[in-house]
Amino acid sequence: MSVTAAKGFTAAGIAAGIKENGNPDLALVVNTGPRRAAAGVFTSNRVKAAPVLWSEQVLKSGQVSAVVLNSGGANACTGPKGFQDTHATAEKVAEVLGRGAIEVAVCSTGLIGVLLPMDKLLPGVETAAAQLSEHGGEKAAIAIKTTDTVHKTSVVTKDGWTVGGMAKGAGMLAPGLATMLVVLTTDADLDDDVLDKALRAATRTTFDRVDSDGCMSTNDTVLLLASGAAGVTPEYAEFAEAVRQVCDDLGQQLIRDAEGASKDIKVEVVNAATEDDAVEVGRSIARNNLLKCAIHGEDPNWGRVLSAIGTTKAAFEPDRLNVAINGVWVCKNGGVGEDREKVDMRYREVHIVADLAAGSETATIWTNDLTADYVHENSAYSS
Amino acid sequence: MSVTAAKGFTAAGIAAGIKENGNPDLALVVNTGPRRAAAGVFTSNRVKAAPVLWSEQVLKSGQVSAVVLNSGGANACTGPKGFQDTHATAEKVAEVLGRGAIEVAVCSTGLIGVLLPMDKLLPGVETAAAQLSEHGGEKAAIAIKTTDTVHKTSVVTKDGWTVGGMAKGAGMLAPGLATMLVVLTTDADLDDDVLDKALRAATRTTFDRVDSDGCMSTNDTVLLLASGAAGVTPEYAEFAEAVRQVCDDLGQQLIRDAEGASKDIKVEVVNAATEDDAVEVGRSIARNNLLKCAIHGEDPNWGRVLSAIGTTKAAFEPDRLNVAINGVWVCKNGGVGEDREKVDMRYREVHIVADLAAGSETATIWTNDLTADYVHENSAYSS
Repeated sequence: MSVTAAKGFTAAGIAAGIKENGNPDLALVVNTGPRRAAAGVFTSNRVKAAPVLWSEQVLKSGQVSAVVLNSGGANACTGPKGFQDTHATAEKVAEVLGRGAIEVAVCSTGLIGVLLPMDKLLPGVETAAAQLSEHGGEKAAIAIKTTDTVHKTSVVTKDGWTVGGMAKGAGMLAPGLATMLVVLTTDADLDDDVLDKALRAATRTTFDRVDSDGCMSTNDTVLLLASGAAGVTPEYAEFAEAVRQVCDDLGQQLIRDAEGASKDIKVEVVNAATEDDAVEVGRSIARNNLLKCAIHGEDPNWGRVLSAIGTTKAAFEPDRLNVAINGVWVCKNGGVGEDREKVDMRYREVHIVADLAAGSETATIWTNDLTADYVHENSAYSS
Repeated sequence: MSVTAAKGFTAAGIAAGIKENGNPDLALVVNTGPRRAAAGVFTSNRVKAAPVLWSEQVLKSGQVSAVVLNSGGANACTGPKGFQDTHATAEKVAEVLGRGAIEVAVCSTGLIGVLLPMDKLLPGVETAAAQLSEHGGEKAAIAIKTTDTVHKTSVVTKDGWTVGGMAKGAGMLAPGLATMLVVLTTDADLDDDVLDKALRAATRTTFDRVDSDGCMSTNDTVLLLASGAAGVTPEYAEFAEAVRQVCDDLGQQLIRDAEGASKDIKVEVVNAATEDDAVEVGRSIARNNLLKCAIHGEDPNWGRVLSAIGTTKAAFEPDRLNVAINGVWVCKNGGVGEDREKVDMRYREVHIVADLAAGSETATIWTNDLTADYVHENSAYSS
């Protein structure tokens, strides 16, 4: 159901010929109203792709009529010509839909440093517009895939209103956000400032804590569009929780589809002095290549967890640290704990708990193991 | 020649039985004087192994008579018993040499979280002491190897005085320092404060900029011992440069022997506003797993370089960045530059230049590519 689960949206996904292999590569999502409130969060990478620079401007008005997304090229590091191409894409969408270009957000994903084939992309916009449908959400989700093995969608339905969405991403996953494009839609009747607040709160503890390989993209974009078609204005807390659930579900799908991964690793930091400490420690553990290799080898190498914690500025005493791997406290008080032979690591999900014994705050970061397949996928061809 | 190239030192390396495979695992380096001035720098990891905690105390006096080093176990995260074992090792060395234990530095390397077999280590100290020789430097260098494929030594000889040294390290290489033990010796006649100044200056631009896999060890130790046996007190600048040369040479040897690596990558950041900016950008590039995979695949993927630069706080404008790979400026002004097909990446050394166009400072960070062999070496068994 994806982005068309909520009322007031149509979508399409087509093959415009941007990808040389002929796979779907262009998606269009249109808000048919009655309202067009929207919010967006973007990569914190300072090297931002042209579509990010454009869409940041679009979102300033808090109004989005349509989102056009392409795979097959990131349009990043493409200079003034790249920005002109993004602008021309928005103008084309505006023209075929009869809207203003400044209400058209643009997202691109694929290889950095290559100009998009505009001779294929612009006609593709017309084709996609002709196929817009209230049932087009699935096709749109498929068209934004790059190295994704599956398309990702999620829907939460509440009393008379819905939040749904689609995501793409399978590598270069790291905060600010993960390498991904996400479009969320809702038929709830809400102002753009409420959407913005709910979206920032949701991404902060979901996409921002999905850290597959520590690499931050130039194109990350998460958009939330509200049509108001349900004619219902939910309580903020309930709405925010629905957005968080959809983001959390999509974030989990990203981790499960991460390039080359054989393990999904939940790094839970507990008893931290502050949430910032918990996040810093969680990220340090999640980004430790030696640990990620050990997990791949099903080796409960807690020494590498402690070594990673030790590189942070978080509040802790080395001789009070505790670490559990899949429920076995293999490290107690900074030293040897329970028998590591008790740790069962046969399954895909691995759960590491790092107890800082310094307070009561917590944070969970998701990451993946480091595998020969990851190396292969990211060395055998440009992506 | 190693640590016995300089006059006034003896050394030995033996197999004490700490390693189950029977390889050499215990080294002893003794300063026979007339002086015993010394300096040391240690890991900045807050989770420090017992021998680091001990040796930090030893170095406070600025006097070191002997260094005992073992491979086969890091004695890290081993609690009070681990510290007692380090202390007992120093006491044993002191006893057999007739010196004070507080003048005996201890270094350990190997798996974290395992107690050392003291029933083998302590008799090994006696065996090593019996084999001390002015020609023992090579054997000492061999005895500290872990996953190293070669032992590492370096010597610089000047007018009447010498600086020599040995190093071990082949993974978990990252600043603060690399995962390594290094003992440097000189027969120059110098005070400990001069040694300290020269050693800190040297490590800051050598070992601290060797960043194979971003993982920081619990055991890193670099010691510099001066016997004064040459009876010569060199100018500070000349001495500091000799120490820097030996550190630089040993650091290069560490990178060339990094676990599983097929490329040595020199990341040179130029035209930075400050040296700190240059180092931050260099580290960000050196730690980008996607780029390290691309280099392994001989793919001059400059988009991943820009993406890594964009995650830093350094001063730069995205549209003024330039990147050269092996002499070809593949990125100019933040966009496509010279033809990437011109880049020849067949050889082991790869040279990346990142031009921030923001000032005149520079820094060079060395790293390795990310390979399936790295994953294998660090997942197939505990280390």
